[in-house]
Amino acid sequence: MSDQSHFSTEGAGTPTAPGRYVKVDGIDPVEMLPGLEFRPVLGEKTMVNFVRFAPHVEAPKHVHIEEQIVIVLEGEFEFDIDGDVRTMRPGDVAVVPPWVPHGAHTNDVGCLEADVFNPPRQTLLAFAEAQMRKTDGNS
Amino acid sequence: MSDQSHFSTEGAGTPTAPGRYVKVDGIDPVEMLPGLEFRPVLGEKTMVNFVRFAPHVEAPKHVHIEEQIVIVLEGEFEFDIDGDVRTMRPGDVAVVPPWVPHGAHTNDVGCLEADVFNPPRQTLLAFAEAQMRKTDGNS
Repeated sequence: MSDQSHFSTEGAGTPTAPGRYVKVDGIDPVEMLPGLEFRPVLGEKTMVNFVRFAPHVEAPKHVHIEEQIVIVLEGEFEFDIDGDVRTMRPGDVAVVPPWVPHGAHTNDVGCLEADVFNPPRQTLLAFAEAQMRKTDGNS
Repeated sequence: MSDQSHFSTEGAGTPTAPGRYVKVDGIDPVEMLPGLEFRPVLGEKTMVNFVRFAPHVEAPKHVHIEEQIVIVLEGEFEFDIDGDVRTMRPGDVAVVPPWVPHGAHTNDVGCLEADVFNPPRQTLLAFAEAQMRKTDGNS
């Protein structure tokens, strides 16, 4: 690995879409459960869903086909990967392959975290597409 | 979209790997350029590279086949998507489709940000795989 190869300017392909900037706070959230707000940002084949947990909120254990990587941004929560429960704070990441059971809950402190989904999480796609159209131009 | 469908426990597939926790600070960084540290976390088809810019450091404008989504975690930097330059801070996201030119630099303040790559960034793959083996078990 070299900085020359990493920072290559040799384009072998053509962009399929322009890039864009998004303000997460500019996304109207969907409240999936009371105290659990989702703000999804949609790429082409990837979604990043910004999730805010109020204190004492649970995202029940579940499974899905999409690969997920969890990045904690603020506060803390208890994350459960198939029975391995740990307190996650900023600087902590969880890697959840497809179909691995996982869930999370907050205690006295809230949490802001980003869930990366590859491919985009099917159950959030219609909402994320609508958000993308709505925020287009005011980002 | 409903919480019942989102939090489904109906598994139609089998996990291909167990999940895992990663401490970003536990990753030995690669210094791509002076003042530019990379700490990549590798999933199956997705990579999240945690990047720390010291003040006054530039990641030169470049292109690549991988889709990229940028999440600012601390501090600030000037991001350039094909000539559209903006100051990004926590709460700001940039969506960079394949082959769209982009670069970044810090001024007087440093920056910590996460670059999501789909598929994993080829130039970082060998390093990320070695890191994953090294941190396995001490995460």
